[in-house]
Amino acid sequence: MIVLYGFLPSGNVYKVRLLFAHLGIEHRRIEVAQYAGHTSLPAFRRINPIGKVPVVRLDDGSVLTESGAILYYFAQGTQFWPSDLQAQTETLRWMFFEQYSHEPPIAGNRYMLGYMSDRTGLEGLIAMNAARGEHALRVMDGHLAEHSWFSGDQYGIADIALYAYTHVANDGGFDLSPHAHIRRWLNDVCAQPRHILLLQETSVSPVTTLEEERGV
Amino acid sequence: MIVLYGFLPSGNVYKVRLLFAHLGIEHRRIEVAQYAGHTSLPAFRRINPIGKVPVVRLDDGSVLTESGAILYYFAQGTQFWPSDLQAQTETLRWMFFEQYSHEPPIAGNRYMLGYMSDRTGLEGLIAMNAARGEHALRVMDGHLAEHSWFSGDQYGIADIALYAYTHVANDGGFDLSPHAHIRRWLNDVCAQPRHILLLQETSVSPVTTLEEERGV
Repeated sequence: MIVLYGFLPSGNVYKVRLLFAHLGIEHRRIEVAQYAGHTSLPAFRRINPIGKVPVVRLDDGSVLTESGAILYYFAQGTQFWPSDLQAQTETLRWMFFEQYSHEPPIAGNRYMLGYMSDRTGLEGLIAMNAARGEHALRVMDGHLAEHSWFSGDQYGIADIALYAYTHVANDGGFDLSPHAHIRRWLNDVCAQPRHILLLQETSVSPVTTLEEERGV
Repeated sequence: MIVLYGFLPSGNVYKVRLLFAHLGIEHRRIEVAQYAGHTSLPAFRRINPIGKVPVVRLDDGSVLTESGAILYYFAQGTQFWPSDLQAQTETLRWMFFEQYSHEPPIAGNRYMLGYMSDRTGLEGLIAMNAARGEHALRVMDGHLAEHSWFSGDQYGIADIALYAYTHVANDGGFDLSPHAHIRRWLNDVCAQPRHILLLQETSVSPVTTLEEERGV
């Protein structure tokens, strides 16, 4: 069975879990949490030297990393990856935008405000992230004023990628109320068949830890 | 003719220029430099609201943004994009790695050390980038110890994406001498047919500025 390494509240892991839910892909999850130091363990670095989740292990033992690449892999041949080259390019455009211009400031502030008790010395970074994240949200809102989706003409993996941290942007101190088009789009994403919530467990077998795995 | 908006020394712009050189794609370039404030001009924000280069305008007027998406678009049907799904996923994996874990610290320090005269207050960020960039280089070197390329079995767009800022990492204070596999790979990239240097102008018509364009 497909194995997913990741932390339940991680937006990057949620992207994969959300696509798996839409496609009905069964998997089991191994808990790997950055805040608990799991991503720095040698056992995990052997699986992904970059030390980031999500990681997917396929039945043949091969390993996929980077949420965007994992989404691409599983979306092939489905409605979540457009067939038209221009729409494919547009989809990747927003996925690269998400990883470069959107996730770092928005997930960064969510992590620092939500998981760190001592933020001394980080005030400047948090303020810079607030400005960069707000710019990314304005760009998204401007796109959504004229388009329904980020993946061409229909809901797809660019929407999944951007939804993950946008819908919890408030955790990082971002205010979505001025962005009416984003709020419309968030509702449209939630209304998709088989949508799951961020903290909704979808593993078909009990979640295990890296330590338990090594004991097997 | 295809129009490329970007700054000559920009690694992200160079990625597109290098693929264009390999494929013999003629284009003209419009100078858009972040350090000179061009990317904040309303005339440019109308073309790309995110305010980043490179941007490509096709003959039909449609606009492509994000270097990774532009590489994907032009590589379709060529040797620079693998035909096998696993290799495609591996290619995208390294392209997302480049934009999330590699380019921000390495290009960031190259920009701060090379283009900013006053770096007061940025010492902490520069030190953090140094550690993050060195980690990314170690991950690359580890991959190259066992593989020839980042794009599956042959040179492709993930190699182009990673080459752009790796070969000038020294500008950001990074030392490539301990990374023997990276140095081997840099030589292999340079040896590819129709390789061009970063500062090698490839526009087939005189480079113009946004101001000159608006006057036309």
